Amino acid sequence: MSQISIAIIGLGYVGLPLAVEFAKKYPVIGFDIKQERVNQLRKGYDATLEITGQELNGVLCDRHSSDIDKPAALFITSDSDALAEANYYIVTVPTPTDKNNRPDLTPLIKASETIGKVLKPGDIVIYESTVYPGATEEECVPILEKFSGLKYCTTQPQTQAPSPSALSTQHSVLSSQHFFCGYSPERINPGDKEHTVTRIKKITSGSTPEAAEKIDTLYRSIITAGTHRASSIKVAEAAKVIENSQRDINIAFINELAMIFNRLGIDTHEVLEAAGTKWNFLQFKPGLVGGHCIGVDPYYLAQKAQESGYHPEIILAGRRLNDNMGKYIASEVVKLLIKGDYKVKGASILMLGITFKENCPDIRNTRAVDIAQELKQYGAAVEIYDPWATPEEVMHEYGLEFLSSLNGNHYDAIILTVAHDHFKTLDIRKLLSTPTGIVYDVKGMLPPDQVDGRL
Amino acid sequence: MSQISIAIIGLGYVGLPLAVEFAKKYPVIGFDIKQERVNQLRKGYDATLEITGQELNGVLCDRHSSDIDKPAALFITSDSDALAEANYYIVTVPTPTDKNNRPDLTPLIKASETIGKVLKPGDIVIYESTVYPGATEEECVPILEKFSGLKYCTTQPQTQAPSPSALSTQHSVLSSQHFFCGYSPERINPGDKEHTVTRIKKITSGSTPEAAEKIDTLYRSIITAGTHRASSIKVAEAAKVIENSQRDINIAFINELAMIFNRLGIDTHEVLEAAGTKWNFLQFKPGLVGGHCIGVDPYYLAQKAQESGYHPEIILAGRRLNDNMGKYIASEVVKLLIKGDYKVKGASILMLGITFKENCPDIRNTRAVDIAQELKQYGAAVEIYDPWATPEEVMHEYGLEFLSSLNGNHYDAIILTVAHDHFKTLDIRKLLSTPTGIVYDVKGMLPPDQVDGRL
Repeated sequence: MSQISIAIIGLGYVGLPLAVEFAKKYPVIGFDIKQERVNQLRKGYDATLEITGQELNGVLCDRHSSDIDKPAALFITSDSDALAEANYYIVTVPTPTDKNNRPDLTPLIKASETIGKVLKPGDIVIYESTVYPGATEEECVPILEKFSGLKYCTTQPQTQAPSPSALSTQHSVLSSQHFFCGYSPERINPGDKEHTVTRIKKITSGSTPEAAEKIDTLYRSIITAGTHRASSIKVAEAAKVIENSQRDINIAFINELAMIFNRLGIDTHEVLEAAGTKWNFLQFKPGLVGGHCIGVDPYYLAQKAQESGYHPEIILAGRRLNDNMGKYIASEVVKLLIKGDYKVKGASILMLGITFKENCPDIRNTRAVDIAQELKQYGAAVEIYDPWATPEEVMHEYGLEFLSSLNGNHYDAIILTVAHDHFKTLDIRKLLSTPTGIVYDVKGMLPPDQVDGRL
Repeated sequence: MSQISIAIIGLGYVGLPLAVEFAKKYPVIGFDIKQERVNQLRKGYDATLEITGQELNGVLCDRHSSDIDKPAALFITSDSDALAEANYYIVTVPTPTDKNNRPDLTPLIKASETIGKVLKPGDIVIYESTVYPGATEEECVPILEKFSGLKYCTTQPQTQAPSPSALSTQHSVLSSQHFFCGYSPERINPGDKEHTVTRIKKITSGSTPEAAEKIDTLYRSIITAGTHRASSIKVAEAAKVIENSQRDINIAFINELAMIFNRLGIDTHEVLEAAGTKWNFLQFKPGLVGGHCIGVDPYYLAQKAQESGYHPEIILAGRRLNDNMGKYIASEVVKLLIKGDYKVKGASILMLGITFKENCPDIRNTRAVDIAQELKQYGAAVEIYDPWATPEEVMHEYGLEFLSSLNGNHYDAIILTVAHDHFKTLDIRKLLSTPTGIVYDVKGMLPPDQVDGRL
């Protein structure tokens, strides 16, 4: 085959680290539709903080300079025409849900259209975005076929209305008009500097044995943790979507315990510490479940299950429960305010942390906003401080009052929502208007005797 | 204090191993209401197969012989008067549920009555049976008080109607008329020869700091894995009941996945194998959830939660789902029979395995019976074979046709329900009436190409 040339579509938390790794070995075209993101990356700045300026600058090249002849480098662009010279396309766009918690495949469809327009016979398109089982072949492949005029080559049985070409296995003969697909789920853990892309074992799959082999070889060349070849694209899709669903369920269970124990006057963290002394107890903690993965992926699985006639009990119970934790926390804080003889209407409340997880700037689908929005419903005045988040982004996404720095000590209550390391050194009680002000610790960060309530 | 003398009430899976270990250091009176069990144990035979004859005979003594002066030995009896000379009472009776899945505290109440009748001032009563948080002090302590005429000594805040004595902390002064309690949950894993009683870290708790210290010291003297002292009896109770609930939820989630993937034509085991390559994926398998712990404990927690005004979503969804797996498996087998042109009415079906888990003779609350009973509803003729189970016990408990040996090859379908090692070497297809007969593998024991369906 011709020399490997990779295009990566979507340069976010998933695409950028992957592009940087591949660019150490192959020519890589990194594509993103956000011009601002492209501009920043070309200057060596990654706003997601996954890649340092040094790492990025080490692989960046400018097509219009003499770098063009580099055998391995990363060219970043928002021009889709530049994708045409690749023979491997890797899709790493987000797969969010809409306001009704239904999968929103728009980015995936748009990326498929973009690729379809430049796709050539023999090319391989690999999806990394989390989807429900079947999405790659049922949703993306038809778009690729439509926009490329080429035919999808697969040896895998198709469940839904296969195109005539899908039944053909004569891919070597037909590859003059065929393209191939694969699915290799991303397993990026934002902010995790230990489990980085090359250190996480990667599942691979392909639409034919030959495509699967090529895809596996490609990833094996950069993933030091190795690969696991799934028997089909659907198995690989299913494997990914259940990982985060499992985490969601486990946290939902612990959240349910927290609400039960709270009613029984038992400290949940003490119980978890005791239970954790058993060799097989799973050490999850109560808390909010947000972000673009754990809080979203179960809805993808649920939709497909419902489509197949099965109404998911556990999966949706977990989602329902976790999605309500913000309201629950707000009601607990309000109870503490009332108990402390504070006037709830107009109460001044500071929320420390807005990102969806600790030590990470990502605010997408953060559920901390639920606390703020619920408290506003109670008439409280909520201010938010988070040294990791970008004020404009918070204002733009959620329309919430965001402090650029901590100033003042006028708060009736403080809610520790995110366990940023930064907050551990903060003298939180100093920010309260009175020494008896309320401190509520969502994440169990502080010693229990320093807080008035915790999840 | 006087010399330690221990009475253990209930000599089942939990009580017997504990009695044997304590009897290596202290005089122990092992009490059980089942005369047959007592007779067997006195002869050195443990029908639960947790303790070997050699181990048991090594500690047994007969009070009426010269053994009476042994400083450490186990005297087994069904005579409750013999308990009077103990100063530590450990309750290890079962805590089942009734047919409406409500906690059945009868054994616990009866044991408390028995102890109450012989309780002396200063004695310590430790409960090991799994209960909901609060059960020890709300349900058992009043019985102990009533039958002993003594008062319960605690420094812990009581949630419900404390007796006047409960408020007193002058236990040293009052101990002439007081007794103490503790809770130290059993963590026995039946059939597990690695995690035996002394090798599993033990949670301890006591009604006063002094009682907690004594109880912890007592267990520390035999538990080589060490102890974890919980801050209160309620925390210890809560820690235990959530351990098995967590396992229940996790298996329910995997069972839900199995049902979804089955509809989507995806092999669940392949998906789990792929997902299992992620460092933090939890490797549970689909299957039936029975036994006297995992299938029961969540109902204890649920009842207490409901009593407190919280309706458990996740916990009960897990129970509902797992309790329905037998029916689901039966319907899958029926579909395979129909697909294979077998007549369902009168179909000859062999079920391999009836115990609640592999390599273990325990049939209590086994859910394999659900498959058999559901298949009978479809008109099929079901036979059961299990080399671990006792035929009389199966007949007595469930009224099912039980084979003492495998004879014949007249089966239309065979269901592998329990993964006993014994079944792994069996040539299962030889038992079928035709080479195309149905084999359904509940536990994923056999290679997929040797079975017609699996969970």
